[in-house]
Amino acid sequence: MNHIPAPVKERLLYLLGLLEKNAAPEKRRQGGYAGLVTSARVEELTGWHRDTIRKDISWLESRETAGSPGGYDPGVLIPAIRKALGLDRVRRFCIVGLGRLGSAYLNRPFAPGCDGMGEFELAAGFDINVNRVEILKSPVPLYPAYKMGEVIARFGIEIALLCVPPGEARGAAEKLAASGIRGIVNFAPAALVLPPDVAVRNVYVADELRALVINMESSGNPG
Amino acid sequence: MNHIPAPVKERLLYLLGLLEKNAAPEKRRQGGYAGLVTSARVEELTGWHRDTIRKDISWLESRETAGSPGGYDPGVLIPAIRKALGLDRVRRFCIVGLGRLGSAYLNRPFAPGCDGMGEFELAAGFDINVNRVEILKSPVPLYPAYKMGEVIARFGIEIALLCVPPGEARGAAEKLAASGIRGIVNFAPAALVLPPDVAVRNVYVADELRALVINMESSGNPG
Repeated sequence: MNHIPAPVKERLLYLLGLLEKNAAPEKRRQGGYAGLVTSARVEELTGWHRDTIRKDISWLESRETAGSPGGYDPGVLIPAIRKALGLDRVRRFCIVGLGRLGSAYLNRPFAPGCDGMGEFELAAGFDINVNRVEILKSPVPLYPAYKMGEVIARFGIEIALLCVPPGEARGAAEKLAASGIRGIVNFAPAALVLPPDVAVRNVYVADELRALVINMESSGNPG
Repeated sequence: MNHIPAPVKERLLYLLGLLEKNAAPEKRRQGGYAGLVTSARVEELTGWHRDTIRKDISWLESRETAGSPGGYDPGVLIPAIRKALGLDRVRRFCIVGLGRLGSAYLNRPFAPGCDGMGEFELAAGFDINVNRVEILKSPVPLYPAYKMGEVIARFGIEIALLCVPPGEARGAAEKLAASGIRGIVNFAPAALVLPPDVAVRNVYVADELRALVINMESSGNPG
């Protein structure tokens, strides 16, 4: 596969979300451009220059996504983007740390209507507290933390949601890396130190609050 | 204040994070360009064109941020961006829904080292279950949900972290909007319907997983 630069991937992921929303059954009935999407329309929705959008799509290296004068066909573009971004197969993930946060995620759906969760399958949960592992109700098997390496390999788990307390985050992340995990979504408010072949995405509430505030200011500022 | 377009705000927020990381004490000692930041360096780190970066910074409308031939001074740029994005004063927030997820956030720090949380102050928690409100240990006062309007007004709370179960999310969000809240960080996997003057930021685990996977693919793909 060609090596797509990170900013291009991020824009393609955002575009995928837009296309999927527009491809939802209730929208599809409304028609418009016979269902085609133009780079001008994407520019309108995102603020990216249409030349940037065209260049981004050209990374997909598929003749069908080249676009006609009327625009791009979402039915072709959506699977092409999924494939290019590595979202075209199911990946297994686990939850590490089954305190309040981890056990909350263990027992609730992950997306509105669970769209997109077909791409991800919760396979196991881990905690250092053996009692907790035995007592908790769970839709997937739970294991004591020392079994991480064995279980991650056996189930082909690629991703971990890290939900341990802040002080335990670095240690747990190191164990996960040693167990062959390839990516961590970090909910612990702690910066992780990991080998370069393990991807990390930090979900810090402070960052979410900031991103919210910049939208608050632009929508009806009473100040 | 001038009306800065949303994509510019998002880039400025990202730039703020980069600058703050570079302004951390352990980095500052290393020097380099006498502490100045160039648009070429930002292009290197983000992939945005340096002309875009210069234009974004020009929105700040401050003579001091105009930049010298050597680059921009982070000591000037950081407060100018904070001010332009509305991040230059403390905002109070509350947690709504004190089940596993909400009570987890009630009792843990929100950012690594709590940097940046000076901008946000947790002021209260709410739950429809009065027993829960009375029993839970908390660093801030907790109230039954019916007191939302009164408490939000009294404490000047602007933001809510919505942590209720998916089925209760819409109802709780409506009550928050009616109580005068200005922004909601939604941790419930449910799409909210809100008046246009209430900003929403959805934290869906499925979206975080996708964003992680696109980074996994670019860092050491074994496939």
